[in-house]
Amino acid sequence: MERWLISLKTSTPQDGYELAILLSQKGIQYTQPSAELRRELRPCYAYDADSLIAVSQVIAINFQTIAAANNYWRDTC
Amino acid sequence: MERWLISLKTSTPQDGYELAILLSQKGIQYTQPSAELRRELRPCYAYDADSLIAVSQVIAINFQTIAAANNYWRDTC
Amino acid sequence: MERWLISLKTSTPQDGYELAILLSQKGIQYTQPSAELRRELRPCYAYDADSLIAVSQVIAINFQTIAAANNYWRDTC
Amino acid sequence: MERWLISLKTSTPQDGYELAILLSQKGIQYTQPSAELRRELRPCYAYDADSLIAVSQVIAINFQTIAAANNYWRDTC
Amino acid sequence: MERWLISLKTSTPQDGYELAILLSQKGIQYTQPSAELRRELRPCYAYDADSLIAVSQVIAINFQTIAAANNYWRDTC
Amino acid sequence: MERWLISLKTSTPQDGYELAILLSQKGIQYTQPSAELRRELRPCYAYDADSLIAVSQVIAINFQTIAAANNYWRDTC
Repeated sequence: MERWLISLKTSTPQDGYELAILLSQKGIQYTQPSAELRRELRPCYAYDADSLIAVSQVIAINFQTIAAANNYWRDTC
Repeated sequence: MERWLISLKTSTPQDGYELAILLSQKGIQYTQPSAELRRELRPCYAYDADSLIAVSQVIAINFQTIAAANNYWRDTC
Repeated sequence: MERWLISLKTSTPQDGYELAILLSQKGIQYTQPSAELRRELRPCYAYDADSLIAVSQVIAINFQTIAAANNYWRDTC
Repeated sequence: MERWLISLKTSTPQDGYELAILLSQKGIQYTQPSAELRRELRPCYAYDADSLIAVSQVIAINFQTIAAANNYWRDTC
Repeated sequence: MERWLISLKTSTPQDGYELAILLSQKGIQYTQPSAELRRELRPCYAYDADSLIAVSQVIAINFQTIAAANNYWRDTC
Repeated sequence: MERWLISLKTSTPQDGYELAILLSQKGIQYTQPSAELRRELRPCYAYDADSLIAVSQVIAINFQTIAAANNYWRDTC
């Protein structure tokens, strides 16, 4: 797989949150590498409240990691 | 996306909890950007005990991050 | 919303556990603000083993935060 | 409620694991205080693989807290 | 219950992972003490993708604890 | 079982993420050792949105451990 993750460092908490989203998506891409199939599955979770909550939970877990890696952006904020 | 997260710092634990709620909602908004669709999905979780428990869990995970970022508000309380 | 969370500090681990229960309930109250509706939903989880396990999990996550905030009550016990 | 949790300190990791089980049960007892009802619900999870896995997960989360509180029993082992 | 957990220390990360598996199984054994019943339940999760994913999650949580207890095996690796 | 995990150290965050995927798979392999059966189960989760989200969550939890073990790759990035 190509390089997609060089560092956990981000400039701002929001950039960190968006990196957490990327990490969450990557977990799915590694498991289901077909972009076409993932596109077909999109309605299964994008219109389902419980799936959206589950997605938000995965993002929250990845955000914990990234926030710790950035020392919670304490120095810059 | 517009700027919505500048800092993880909050004045009080309650403000931190409410920021955790915002983070949890954002995870859903990024995944389902349509505000109208999210409004339609609202009854699916707001009237469902298990969905509400799941929402509370995502908030709890985000609150862990924010509480750590604020050093548990030890200095001010 | 009124003030309901001033500090994560508690005198004892048990008080901390009970604060974790409050945090877990608050996640639900913010999402479903109607007390009447929440009362109606109560049988859906209070008589369901899997829902009760899920509630206990949310409490466990919040208790992690509160225990860390209190330095695990090491100084006083 | 009576006093049931005085300290997170335990002599051994196994005692800590058993305290994690107690914490997990307490989350359920606070939510469903009727001992009779909880007894009736027991077959719903004790004979269900997914429920047992979920119980083990709640114990694992509580064990994280207790292990940290005991500094992972590093000094004594 | 007999002694089954003396220390969280292991020589290698892999031994730590295998201890995490043991902890995960113990959570189930304490809740369903009958070895015969657990054997009957085995097909319910060993042939079910979602159950296997859930098992792997419990192991992951316990591995976090054990890895921290061993200071991530930094000294020896 | 053969040696498959020597160290939690990796050169880059992406290598760490890929090790987290390996840990997540191992949790399943230890529980269902038959490679043939696991292959048969693959469609059950690779074409199911909720299963893929669950897999991504297990990876996220394991990545927390590996990121901490590598001190978030702070020194090298």
